[in-house]
Amino acid sequence: MTTSHPFDEAMALAHSDLRAGLFSGATTRPYWNMVGPFGGTTAAVMLQAVLRHPDLLGAPIALTVNYAAAVGEGAFEVQATPVRTNRSTQHWTVQVTQADAQGARQVTTTGTVVTALRRETWGAADLAMPEVPSPAQVERVSIGPKGVEWIRHYDMRPISGAVPAAWDGSGHHSETRLWVRDDQPRTLDFCSLAAMSDVFYPRVWLRRATPVPAGTVSITTYFHADAAQLAEVGTGYLLGQATGQQFRNGFFDQTAQLWSEGGQLLATSNQIVYYKE
Amino acid sequence: MTTSHPFDEAMALAHSDLRAGLFSGATTRPYWNMVGPFGGTTAAVMLQAVLRHPDLLGAPIALTVNYAAAVGEGAFEVQATPVRTNRSTQHWTVQVTQADAQGARQVTTTGTVVTALRRETWGAADLAMPEVPSPAQVERVSIGPKGVEWIRHYDMRPISGAVPAAWDGSGHHSETRLWVRDDQPRTLDFCSLAAMSDVFYPRVWLRRATPVPAGTVSITTYFHADAAQLAEVGTGYLLGQATGQQFRNGFFDQTAQLWSEGGQLLATSNQIVYYKE
Repeated sequence: MTTSHPFDEAMALAHSDLRAGLFSGATTRPYWNMVGPFGGTTAAVMLQAVLRHPDLLGAPIALTVNYAAAVGEGAFEVQATPVRTNRSTQHWTVQVTQADAQGARQVTTTGTVVTALRRETWGAADLAMPEVPSPAQVERVSIGPKGVEWIRHYDMRPISGAVPAAWDGSGHHSETRLWVRDDQPRTLDFCSLAAMSDVFYPRVWLRRATPVPAGTVSITTYFHADAAQLAEVGTGYLLGQATGQQFRNGFFDQTAQLWSEGGQLLATSNQIVYYKE
Repeated sequence: MTTSHPFDEAMALAHSDLRAGLFSGATTRPYWNMVGPFGGTTAAVMLQAVLRHPDLLGAPIALTVNYAAAVGEGAFEVQATPVRTNRSTQHWTVQVTQADAQGARQVTTTGTVVTALRRETWGAADLAMPEVPSPAQVERVSIGPKGVEWIRHYDMRPISGAVPAAWDGSGHHSETRLWVRDDQPRTLDFCSLAAMSDVFYPRVWLRRATPVPAGTVSITTYFHADAAQLAEVGTGYLLGQATGQQFRNGFFDQTAQLWSEGGQLLATSNQIVYYKE
């Protein structure tokens, strides 16, 4: 039996020269956002290029993606380059480019990835999962601006801090908690975890109860789980939490955490977001 | 009158071709760490290359630095490249290289920087400065491992979470609060703020009261202040706070904040750190 998951379609990369790390992909309809693909899938596909590279060492530890320009509908290229390989860590640079109207390649997205071999060590969780109702007790919501497709491809259940029901300027905090998983069940992996780190709508909308234009400029995600732990989560829900920290002169930062339903902190993520007015 | 500040010496960059963004610098004794320069100065000098570039647009918003290998004592080159310039934002890639014994250039450090023109907008601070005693009420501490020079070049006053007095495995939290400023007074700027984002010793030492080998792999700093606000802070103290979040299988992340003494959140920073055992 073969089933095609829309996320796997978004992650599909062809290559003319695998060792050169040059891949070609294309935006897909299910993960379309307002003026380009969902930033989470762009981050995930850059990670995917690294994971597909034959010289890969270990598993992802850190991913930074800078959204230099909106990715246009259609084909793009991803270049993943292992710039330094040590005994147990490896450092990558990644770039997404698209041809402009004149056929010249323009950089739309830059990034860096660190991968590493992980060894079993002492460990501790200093950020406990908040106590929240179970996914079954929370209603699914799929409201988004018109034309935004990707939201329908996640099963999102806001526990608190949902998109304001009224844009009346009444906001007074910037924290959202929600359960999230792929709408069509799919076993969690590093790419889908990278994408889910970016499912939170702009904190400034919640903080101000005002829908000002906003967009992620740069996101950094740290992976605390290995492939086995992600596989264990399977198709289960993740608890996501996102909070704004400082809003000033056109930019704010938001910090996010993703726990497994069992309470394991799988990823922590931070982003800086442009906003208007 | 000319006074030479050790931090300015660490930030000194020569250039053979300014527009090409290729600069040469050198490690300095005052900011030496155990097996290379203090990572904060490496991050700062990469930002400095961007700030010196003639095509610079605006001021720093985000800085990510990946420590691929220890920088050796002596000369290094920094390449800062503006890969995309938009109307109000600009995206940079940065690399530090050093010649190896055979004269071949090796990448020691990679990074990305986002700069932007900032406009006055609505703003809010959702992360209030904790209530702490004033710098004058807190004793300065300058204890560090042998051979570590850079610690003496910061006036650091731990309020809580100082380096454990006894390595007895008794740790139970990972939060440090301290006042910090340059030892020799120097007006705060983006480079020194970038460096100070990395003054916190590894959280794993505090959490375990055990001095295991540890080193930053990647750091991301977001700048919430403009140049005028930094100049206003002048030579004053910053309140720094750092907390570990998840420690697992050789890596942990720590989140950090830097406020002005007046309570303005100037920068937020996150890093992922390698540790042993």
